[in-house]
Amino acid sequence: MATRTLPLVVNANGVHITFFLLLYVDLLRCQQFIIPYKSPSDCGVDEFFDISSLSCAKCGSNQQRSTTGLSCICKAGFQTLTTDKASITCQQCPTDKPAVTKDGFGCIRCPGSLNDAGMCQCPPGSILVEKDNNGTLLDEAQCDICNGNSPAFSVPNSVGDRCVRCQASFITTSCECNPPNVLGGGLCFPSGTMSTNVNPSVSYAQLTFSVQSAWFVNYLYSSSAACLVYSNLTACQALGNMCVMNMHSFSSQSTDACGLFNTIFRSMAAASSTQDISYWRANLPWLYYGEEPGLASRVLQTSPVPVGFSFRGTNKNTDIKLVAAVYNVRGEFLRWEKVGGGNLQLCPETATRQAAAFSFGTAYHESCVFSVAQLLDAHPEPFFYDVFMDLGGEKNRKLLPLPTLVYNQQYNGRFINQEAMKDWYLSRRMFLVDTLSGREKTLSSQPRVIRVATSIKIRFLLVPRTREGQVFPPLIIVTYTDVPITDLNTQTVSTTFAVEYEMDQSEARVKTDTALGVLGGVAVLYSLLKTISWKRRISSSIIDLETMLKFFLFYAGDLANVFFAVTVGTGLYWLIFYKAQQFVSVLLPLSAQEEQFVTYIGCAFALKAVQFLHKLILQVSVDVFLIDWERPRSKASRPVQTTGESKRDPSPVSIWRTYFVANEWNEIQTIRKINPTFQIMAVLFFLEVLGFSKLALRDPWSTLQRSSQEYTPSYSLTLRYGLAATLWLCIGLLQVMFFTVFYEHFVEDKIRQFVDLCSISNISVLLLSHRCFGYYIHGRSVHGHADTNMEEMNSNLKREAESLCGQRGLLPNTDVQTFQVSLTGRLRSQYDRIRDPLRRNIPSRLMDSSVANGFEQNIRAYYTMNHFLGSVIDHAHADMDYIVKDKLVFERVIGMEFLEPADKSIFYNDPAHSFSDVLFYGNEAMLLIFDTLFFCVVDLGSQSFVLAAVLTYVQQMMFRLIRNILGRRNLVNKTLVDDRFLI
Amino acid sequence: MATRTLPLVVNANGVHITFFLLLYVDLLRCQQFIIPYKSPSDCGVDEFFDISSLSCAKCGSNQQRSTTGLSCICKAGFQTLTTDKASITCQQCPTDKPAVTKDGFGCIRCPGSLNDAGMCQCPPGSILVEKDNNGTLLDEAQCDICNGNSPAFSVPNSVGDRCVRCQASFITTSCECNPPNVLGGGLCFPSGTMSTNVNPSVSYAQLTFSVQSAWFVNYLYSSSAACLVYSNLTACQALGNMCVMNMHSFSSQSTDACGLFNTIFRSMAAASSTQDISYWRANLPWLYYGEEPGLASRVLQTSPVPVGFSFRGTNKNTDIKLVAAVYNVRGEFLRWEKVGGGNLQLCPETATRQAAAFSFGTAYHESCVFSVAQLLDAHPEPFFYDVFMDLGGEKNRKLLPLPTLVYNQQYNGRFINQEAMKDWYLSRRMFLVDTLSGREKTLSSQPRVIRVATSIKIRFLLVPRTREGQVFPPLIIVTYTDVPITDLNTQTVSTTFAVEYEMDQSEARVKTDTALGVLGGVAVLYSLLKTISWKRRISSSIIDLETMLKFFLFYAGDLANVFFAVTVGTGLYWLIFYKAQQFVSVLLPLSAQEEQFVTYIGCAFALKAVQFLHKLILQVSVDVFLIDWERPRSKASRPVQTTGESKRDPSPVSIWRTYFVANEWNEIQTIRKINPTFQIMAVLFFLEVLGFSKLALRDPWSTLQRSSQEYTPSYSLTLRYGLAATLWLCIGLLQVMFFTVFYEHFVEDKIRQFVDLCSISNISVLLLSHRCFGYYIHGRSVHGHADTNMEEMNSNLKREAESLCGQRGLLPNTDVQTFQVSLTGRLRSQYDRIRDPLRRNIPSRLMDSSVANGFEQNIRAYYTMNHFLGSVIDHAHADMDYIVKDKLVFERVIGMEFLEPADKSIFYNDPAHSFSDVLFYGNEAMLLIFDTLFFCVVDLGSQSFVLAAVLTYVQQMMFRLIRNILGRRNLVNKTLVDDRFLI
Repeated sequence: MATRTLPLVVNANGVHITFFLLLYVDLLRCQQFIIPYKSPSDCGVDEFFDISSLSCAKCGSNQQRSTTGLSCICKAGFQTLTTDKASITCQQCPTDKPAVTKDGFGCIRCPGSLNDAGMCQCPPGSILVEKDNNGTLLDEAQCDICNGNSPAFSVPNSVGDRCVRCQASFITTSCECNPPNVLGGGLCFPSGTMSTNVNPSVSYAQLTFSVQSAWFVNYLYSSSAACLVYSNLTACQALGNMCVMNMHSFSSQSTDACGLFNTIFRSMAAASSTQDISYWRANLPWLYYGEEPGLASRVLQTSPVPVGFSFRGTNKNTDIKLVAAVYNVRGEFLRWEKVGGGNLQLCPETATRQAAAFSFGTAYHESCVFSVAQLLDAHPEPFFYDVFMDLGGEKNRKLLPLPTLVYNQQYNGRFINQEAMKDWYLSRRMFLVDTLSGREKTLSSQPRVIRVATSIKIRFLLVPRTREGQVFPPLIIVTYTDVPITDLNTQTVSTTFAVEYEMDQSEARVKTDTALGVLGGVAVLYSLLKTISWKRRISSSIIDLETMLKFFLFYAGDLANVFFAVTVGTGLYWLIFYKAQQFVSVLLPLSAQEEQFVTYIGCAFALKAVQFLHKLILQVSVDVFLIDWERPRSKASRPVQTTGESKRDPSPVSIWRTYFVANEWNEIQTIRKINPTFQIMAVLFFLEVLGFSKLALRDPWSTLQRSSQEYTPSYSLTLRYGLAATLWLCIGLLQVMFFTVFYEHFVEDKIRQFVDLCSISNISVLLLSHRCFGYYIHGRSVHGHADTNMEEMNSNLKREAESLCGQRGLLPNTDVQTFQVSLTGRLRSQYDRIRDPLRRNIPSRLMDSSVANGFEQNIRAYYTMNHFLGSVIDHAHADMDYIVKDKLVFERVIGMEFLEPADKSIFYNDPAHSFSDVLFYGNEAMLLIFDTLFFCVVDLGSQSFVLAAVLTYVQQMMFRLIRNILGRRNLVNKTLVDDRFLI
Repeated sequence: MATRTLPLVVNANGVHITFFLLLYVDLLRCQQFIIPYKSPSDCGVDEFFDISSLSCAKCGSNQQRSTTGLSCICKAGFQTLTTDKASITCQQCPTDKPAVTKDGFGCIRCPGSLNDAGMCQCPPGSILVEKDNNGTLLDEAQCDICNGNSPAFSVPNSVGDRCVRCQASFITTSCECNPPNVLGGGLCFPSGTMSTNVNPSVSYAQLTFSVQSAWFVNYLYSSSAACLVYSNLTACQALGNMCVMNMHSFSSQSTDACGLFNTIFRSMAAASSTQDISYWRANLPWLYYGEEPGLASRVLQTSPVPVGFSFRGTNKNTDIKLVAAVYNVRGEFLRWEKVGGGNLQLCPETATRQAAAFSFGTAYHESCVFSVAQLLDAHPEPFFYDVFMDLGGEKNRKLLPLPTLVYNQQYNGRFINQEAMKDWYLSRRMFLVDTLSGREKTLSSQPRVIRVATSIKIRFLLVPRTREGQVFPPLIIVTYTDVPITDLNTQTVSTTFAVEYEMDQSEARVKTDTALGVLGGVAVLYSLLKTISWKRRISSSIIDLETMLKFFLFYAGDLANVFFAVTVGTGLYWLIFYKAQQFVSVLLPLSAQEEQFVTYIGCAFALKAVQFLHKLILQVSVDVFLIDWERPRSKASRPVQTTGESKRDPSPVSIWRTYFVANEWNEIQTIRKINPTFQIMAVLFFLEVLGFSKLALRDPWSTLQRSSQEYTPSYSLTLRYGLAATLWLCIGLLQVMFFTVFYEHFVEDKIRQFVDLCSISNISVLLLSHRCFGYYIHGRSVHGHADTNMEEMNSNLKREAESLCGQRGLLPNTDVQTFQVSLTGRLRSQYDRIRDPLRRNIPSRLMDSSVANGFEQNIRAYYTMNHFLGSVIDHAHADMDYIVKDKLVFERVIGMEFLEPADKSIFYNDPAHSFSDVLFYGNEAMLLIFDTLFFCVVDLGSQSFVLAAVLTYVQQMMFRLIRNILGRRNLVNKTLVDDRFLI
């Protein structure tokens, strides 16, 4: 305690000092509330622990502390007097009566010697009598010998003050167990009943040593003999318990607990089976199922439990009712216990959460860590559980015994239960914590080893094709761990309790694989078709390496779609069928069974990524040319081909419309039919804020908000994927619908705006995605001129709005401005010839450094091209003419042209703006699926929707950036528009 | 059980049938594993429960079940014979010895009558003797009377087969408690020691009834008398316990448990205090602190505990060591117990989590729900805890008794402990669950009421201004709830255990308020300055309502910043000081103490929203005009003013450059210095994926990843806000740095690109944000013409890149293209006059319907304006001339111009592009703070960062949309550019 110095400010006014003093005293008083710590064991021999003041207090004279330390008693040789009634005084016994009576209040003369406590001591086999029947103290105590002969058959009781009847097994002619009879565990056995050569060791196979267990030394022989000879029920149970403590391990020739049990088991006639179960002999506990090979699968997978589980509806039944017959280590039956509420679940949890373990369909897994000290304290001796399933029934309640698989069980040295199911050796009866068998010398010593059931797993297997929620008898799998005691306080043991639900997934797997096979085949055909279409579009017919590569690239995309469809279908199937079923007919695949599914998702993602990258590369290498229809005004009918040569034209055609169109084209490269960020946010909102993610929990409930008091099972990967993918696709589709139906009609449609812009600005766009295939946006102004001032522009717009001028279409009196074009090889060759200088072009940013003549050449090529394409559209070249026609529906569906453009190029009407195929806009499905897969793959890896969302956003941003940069560079190269105008 | 029909397919080959039969038998065998449920109580009177087969088995003849039901015993009147050693047989006693001995093995003649069990019965006060000392059975049993007189003082023992010494309080002359002595609770009291008129009722104030408790009826008088008369330690404790069971409630005049306790307390001399604590009298338990008013605050807030808590470093000490002396209800001292590991924490939890309650600084709150049945089962009788704090010390371990505040304690009928602290009446000793005192008739009956400590809260108060982590003595606040038993199985009780850490927050609050006051004052000045600047810029000097409104709008923004700064500062202060401190010197404000803080955040958000909306409105109503410098080429020097009139100019100036610039201006409206979506994603990533949110937990640790095994305390709003706001600002600043330092230099700078574009396209932009103030972007092309073809454009660009032409600046040989402009009133009036028709303009979309002449007028106004502004810039109007100058540093800092433009307008050089002030770009700080506040406010309301992120995204998207739509409409109105070109 800190010492405080008095504030000795001597003031004129004494009151101040008084005040300070008072305060100080007060402070001291508060400080004095601290008391020293004393416990009963801290008190001296002549002190007792005053439970009121929690301190040690002196005993009176001639007194000493009692064993508890909470009171005083008289020293040896002193009798207790109660002078007043509150306390005692002690007085030395007179020399003629030197001994104190057992109750301490009297003095007495002894017939024999005195013991250390100053009391009389009698020889073994005799009792000490100090009082007569009326309670009057004798002058001298007597030592009376108990009469062991018939009919008294008496021996001294444990205190040694009375003769009582001796134990029944001793009674032959007297209460003595004379050789050749054998004394064991407090019983007397006739000779020759059983070999006394038993093996009382407990084998700790995990630690590769065994311990001569004090408990086994004391009771193994006696309980097995009593079981065999006297058919003593408790002894048989005790023997069985010892076998269970040995983890049911036995070899055919040994004399350990299980060996003895089996010897007795065999010695009982098979006819003596209990309850008509041949593995359960009369008087014995049921420890083993038979050793016939394949019995395990017969027991576990033949006849269903006559109870149907149902998740909802009037017949809702999700309660798994287990009961256990509980025995203590001595073989006494304690009670029937309802399993749940912590008897098999070691981990401390609230009752609500623990109860979730026995709600059918809820995958339960709870583990926790105990300090060994805690376990020793809480489990001084093991309890043994025979677990049954309660099948209900009003009057005739039925029980189904549950088979147990002891993972560590050894059979002739083999860990058979860790092998294939046909070798399993099922058993019954289990314990949780055994701190008893590891005690070596005495039963009160500290154990060398403790054995803990560190993993208890109850496994339910659904009957295949059941419609009534039937299951096979559940199996309890117990794994024991041997913990050698080294340091009580720091050692810890981790234990697990789990309930698993399983069904045979082979059928589902076959179905999945069939679907994959069939769809994969279709995909091959479709990819072949695509390849043929591609060959035709590039106007080539040899099958070379590139063709093969293209085929595989197409196939990657189609196969990705197949994988995606199959996995989403599977995920959705589980989501719907598992969560919505009434009678249980499907159960989720376990984590181990999900591997294949995850592989499929991985394949889908990888293949989709290949397709996406392929598409990206195609898009950023597309050929673009902007055809300017504007003719200089001053010399109205001057032919265009001279424009390239004439320098310093006093009234040149302004390039700004081209800049505008190029700029807009650049801007619509990465717009999409959905808002991808909103997509992410919406999915995140549904999953994490509205709690849809709770639907992916391994339980049959479909509530979105769970209380924190409830048990939360783990997530199912299948459900997570099904949920996330479905949600992503649904929100994506809703967005597509919103944007196409509402937004593009009532707010803005960037694609249509671009087409309009082309028309207003008198500029056509030719896009060649393949060598001989592409798209054409006809942008010839209906007013003849677009390069004009605001006044005229506005009046043009007005005239058009009032339908005072012609229609915008390529053909007269049509509206169709967008076309798919199939070019003839000749046209393309001509195009390539003109474009040759542009092809050798270097990015315009470096242009100003050295290659001035290259620049001149480019400009010339540009003008030539402009003129050439303009004249082609104007049907000016007879040998490169074209026709306009509609595409057949079938052609549109399979994305391939039947007619080959031999003499004339073909312009297919395309009011659906399919030129957006070279933009992100036209590939929404692919992008959506790619994003979905990306999101799901990240989530499956990290189990975090937030991380998946963040990474998906980053991925989208990166690819948008790449697409924009490369697309812009391509545009600059192909159209000669300076990149300073693409902003 | 389902009956299976045999598959009777009679086959030519008999083997098949055999196989089916075998299978069937096997199936049957498996099905047979079902057994009926029997419990010992299901067995009949002549059956016993066979613990091996778990079924009922018949007893032998003349036998009946024992009381446990697990074995058979002989019926009354039959003696037990052990013919073989495994089972018993029973034989009727001969008529001359009709009674069975107590051990059941012999027959005897009785001196008196037989009881129901067929044994001899002796009269009260005498014992039954059946055997002699040697164990030999007598022919006739004796009934011997115990000698109650001195010196034997014996009475029959409980079984009635021996005389033992009677209880000390009876011993006067014999073992009888004759009147006037009073018999009570097994003790004999001399008359007149105490009034026997005691009140054995337990009052359930919450339920407004009291119960005559069987326990109190039995033991209240005896324990108080034994305490008073014999100073029996256990009796005193038992009496104290009864008072505690009554929740320490007492009135001065009553004779209930606490009244009796106080009577005895007062009867003890004050000098007899234990351990020098005056409230703790010898032999009595310490139940109350004194009743002096104000004692509670003296005890709780005067002297600190002499232990310093420290979170890290070598002296790390966060262990709160509490110990409790545990007494049972009978007043016996059981043991010292370390508090923790579940003795005060009723809720089942793992040891690790429970231990977190006693780690200093971790706000602990654990509650759970128990079924009443569970409580009754687990707590057959209450235990009483005297809680101390263990101050440590090697040899002299010291303890500090902890005061308890029983929330329900009544003092003369008043719930004093629910009132102000000065009225508190502190006490000691508590219990958790009392199912005993509510038992009315007998101690084994079911209780009518149980009393549960439903809330136990340990409150630590930090010593103000401590640097060594000192606390005042912690207070335990216990709230008991009385639960009337109606339906055991459905009733539930919710209990809570909490540990709270508190410090006096008034100092922090004063500091916060001071900061707010000072900064608020500065904000007033700054807002005044802004208002003055605004008045000047609109060239007005009257103080009208609008001025006041403006002032308040400016003030809202500044005050929002003040609130924001103060709250973020506070949050960050707590985050840093709480999480990083070594010795504990600050503790987090409790939820109740956070209210003011939350209000401040709300204010900041509301005010910021006002500022944001104000700014938004200003931005979408700014005056824009695009000045086209291009002159028609053909008539090179034709004056511009005629352009408006001349129709069908053969070579008009193309409007497309204006469209381009307007389109670009439209596009940069909502660009920002940061990527707002990336901002959200990054914050979410840090908070939710990297686990920064764990920093806001109410514990002193700063680890980001917590194991699920660990206890997770609740979140602190202050820390959450501090963390989220800091993180948001930091990431925002990093982004701003990245974009300004790296991205805009090396990738693209939209603002600079726009200025460049103006210059290339030969178009200037005049922005008037106020009546006489605005911005001017000088875009006159250095080449004279921009409306040209690609060839000339490219060569122009090349020439400029090679510095072959003049500089772009407004003044010759300067580079500065951007200016802030202060216009003279005259210039503005002229501007307004020209703009008048435009002002009456209706959106161009409707233009084509009716007002054709309005449209003509607009075009005319546009050309006039274009010419007027062009000539002003060209210094063509002497009366509207301007000068160009630099702004003073101070002017720039306070955002106000000192010079009033009287004769000449003033163009201030502004290379920093401050015209972005009318865009989102120039208001990044405001937007960032607004977003931060929005995010934090949503989070504080919902405690979900994900929801906050989603809503912030939606908010950003909405405001961006609004800004774009309104900004576009404004642009259309002000520049006459058709909205079809703003895409």
